Amino acid sequence: MTPEEFRQWGHQLIDWLADYQQQIEQYPVRSALKPGEFRASLPAHAPEAPESFQAILDDLNNKILPGITHWQSPNFFAFFPSNASGYSVLGELVAAGLSVQGMLWETSPACTELETHVLDWLVTLLGLPARFRSDGLGGGVIQDSASSALLCALIAARERCTGFNSRLQGSDNRLVLYASTEAHSSLEKAAVIAGIGLNQVRRIGVDKNHTLRVDELQRTLAADRAAGLMPFMVVATLGTTSSLSCDSLPALSALCLHEKLWLHVDAAMAGSAALCPEYRHIHEGLEGADSYCFNPHKWLLTNFDCDCFYVADRAALTRALSVAPAYLDNPASESGSVIDYRDWQIPLGRRFRALKLWFVLRGFGAEGLRQNIRHGIALAQRWGKIIESDSNFELACPVAFNLICFRHHKGDAFNQQLKNALNDSGKMYLSHTVLDGRYTLRLCVGQSTVQAHHTDAAWNLIVQTAQKQSEAL
Amino acid sequence: MTPEEFRQWGHQLIDWLADYQQQIEQYPVRSALKPGEFRASLPAHAPEAPESFQAILDDLNNKILPGITHWQSPNFFAFFPSNASGYSVLGELVAAGLSVQGMLWETSPACTELETHVLDWLVTLLGLPARFRSDGLGGGVIQDSASSALLCALIAARERCTGFNSRLQGSDNRLVLYASTEAHSSLEKAAVIAGIGLNQVRRIGVDKNHTLRVDELQRTLAADRAAGLMPFMVVATLGTTSSLSCDSLPALSALCLHEKLWLHVDAAMAGSAALCPEYRHIHEGLEGADSYCFNPHKWLLTNFDCDCFYVADRAALTRALSVAPAYLDNPASESGSVIDYRDWQIPLGRRFRALKLWFVLRGFGAEGLRQNIRHGIALAQRWGKIIESDSNFELACPVAFNLICFRHHKGDAFNQQLKNALNDSGKMYLSHTVLDGRYTLRLCVGQSTVQAHHTDAAWNLIVQTAQKQSEAL
Repeated sequence: MTPEEFRQWGHQLIDWLADYQQQIEQYPVRSALKPGEFRASLPAHAPEAPESFQAILDDLNNKILPGITHWQSPNFFAFFPSNASGYSVLGELVAAGLSVQGMLWETSPACTELETHVLDWLVTLLGLPARFRSDGLGGGVIQDSASSALLCALIAARERCTGFNSRLQGSDNRLVLYASTEAHSSLEKAAVIAGIGLNQVRRIGVDKNHTLRVDELQRTLAADRAAGLMPFMVVATLGTTSSLSCDSLPALSALCLHEKLWLHVDAAMAGSAALCPEYRHIHEGLEGADSYCFNPHKWLLTNFDCDCFYVADRAALTRALSVAPAYLDNPASESGSVIDYRDWQIPLGRRFRALKLWFVLRGFGAEGLRQNIRHGIALAQRWGKIIESDSNFELACPVAFNLICFRHHKGDAFNQQLKNALNDSGKMYLSHTVLDGRYTLRLCVGQSTVQAHHTDAAWNLIVQTAQKQSEAL
Repeated sequence: MTPEEFRQWGHQLIDWLADYQQQIEQYPVRSALKPGEFRASLPAHAPEAPESFQAILDDLNNKILPGITHWQSPNFFAFFPSNASGYSVLGELVAAGLSVQGMLWETSPACTELETHVLDWLVTLLGLPARFRSDGLGGGVIQDSASSALLCALIAARERCTGFNSRLQGSDNRLVLYASTEAHSSLEKAAVIAGIGLNQVRRIGVDKNHTLRVDELQRTLAADRAAGLMPFMVVATLGTTSSLSCDSLPALSALCLHEKLWLHVDAAMAGSAALCPEYRHIHEGLEGADSYCFNPHKWLLTNFDCDCFYVADRAALTRALSVAPAYLDNPASESGSVIDYRDWQIPLGRRFRALKLWFVLRGFGAEGLRQNIRHGIALAQRWGKIIESDSNFELACPVAFNLICFRHHKGDAFNQQLKNALNDSGKMYLSHTVLDGRYTLRLCVGQSTVQAHHTDAAWNLIVQTAQKQSEAL
């Protein structure tokens, strides 16, 4: 492809994406394809000779668009949003076009320094403790996801607890870690990967607000210590997947300090809300945390992947993860005056992900990002009141931030059937969870283009579908 | 940003990238910035109000371009290439613009099925064993890097060896794994992360061709078994970082089968060469491997990140890595008829990376990709002959594929100084390694735009710089 062909086809694809943005509501939100249907439309072998760009473009229209679930649709209310924006898409385009490698500072200084800088900006914007800034002993790095951030935190915590001995001798089977029953499943995955083991993961019960019970944590810790085990880490959640509940950090910070445990705070979804002063209180007590992450790819208009991960003691992280082959030696690294992000993450290579975050922060400004967060929350709160006033439904818990957990009063099977019918309709997409042991429907109002008429239409559809379903019983 | 603004600014950025491709040779290949210089050019705080798109564009020109190392320059000969192309950049653009999540089949069927399909295409194109195809017990998945692929392989190997018991009880400190002294440092990183420990990594010596000595491996295995340890995995390399040497798979396959060890084959760089029938022999013996990976983001014109990772028994991988929270239950997953790639990787979320690989395979066709590989190899072989004929220099080993390892005869310090002077010039960028205990210069000829006049000019610069350096002694 010559630069002139790139120019021509690039313009075509930009137009295609702009058109997609304008037409997104005409597609079924969740793809209607059956398993195997998409593959059946593809040739069995890769082409020997080059195909025309038009052929690729045709397949985007005829095969890809019917085959995807439209995460950017204003009628997407499932999971947590994966919230892109024009700025982030264009930032990603530039990153792909420059295609630099950020494994070392030397391999692209701006790739490393922009990342450090933008993550320092976010410390201020979110009111995070100064110890997470890079001008002290801490610092931030972009990870692909909160799962990887948690795994890195876990490795650093494991090493600090064992005097950096697990690095050499392997994991110690007495190590134990703690989180609430509502914490994300990435905890188990990290424990499996890191050789800790599922049996060493303690899920602590929650109170009526679905937040970790500190008294139960204390009792469990004492019992584990008495049994000769080695507690080493607590994972607190700001914004649990099921209900966006936020654990109380002041109590957990004090406990972890006293017990010499690594405190990791997973604020993947809710962290972004702290851009708004009225939600900054969720970070109270964060001064005692050893690490923290939140996901701009969830609620800060930056397309996946972009998780911001902070540590208070970067040396603990890099000492845990560093391996240094001779072929990567270079004067800048040896000078000790630069950050080499290869030692802050699982893989070696890395993309220039800071670019898209920089585009977003500048394009929207902090004020624009706050506006987007407040908009989603206002719509969710409004919708929550409507649900509360409908006698066939109940809120499973108060609307937290932009998440509505609700149920039809006819029980688990009815709600499950309702969810499937709504998603099969293609007109909206919602997800579910199990809260207090009951099947619960989830609506997360986080799309950048969602408006009141979308939530109203979705609610009408829910009511009508439930009505029909009741009548058919 | 409205769709119309996206259209307008998107066109500007496409033009900017096309211009960049045309002007790339005017920039110093390695950024000339000093540590901290880039950050000093940025404001201390994120903007409160939105900035204009022009301000962002100006900073791309004035700040970002001088701050990056130009990995796509035809004068970039360092490390291994991170080889982008117009097709892959445009594929990445579409993936970012659609911004779907591929964690489950349901969350975007085409995202999952295109990946499975394209990776099956590559089994045929590279002549990989049929057991890596998805229509049997195996299958392929895109990872961010060969490091992550190796870590996933290691977790699956660890679990298979311990009867999926490490998942529950933590890693067993008797586990030991093996690779040559020339294998990639991601081996140590994976062993640290997985709780195996560096002490349990055996680096086996190499022969004069820098390939793993199977006799030494056998002796080490026997000694470890006699000491009550549990060998579980061998990592073979096709294309080592230092010299692109290829371990002999037939012998290693037979040994691993006999010893019941998981054989992982890391073909990150060299694997792509097997697209050409004349290099397919590197895969002889691969039928005995349990897992395999190669990186289209190195030598298949697909921008980072794109590592293709294959397993012969996908159940071993997913059983090792799966954790299944209630909020991700869905009918398609429960039917068992779909792949959920969340269980094939470290993170949960994932991008639509198959799109760019699909664009590349179709835009170039297999023939175009072969041509690019042969082009780099021909230029490297030609350059190698020139170096061989210069009495001041020697090849450190025969030119392998597109990699030249060479030295000036004046020794380590001279070569190190030479490398720094060449990279400081901004006219070319090369890297180094330590081979047979000696400082060795590396030139990898893998850029899509490199021509003979580039390699000739680079060689003239090397000769002249060495000449001046000799005179100054």
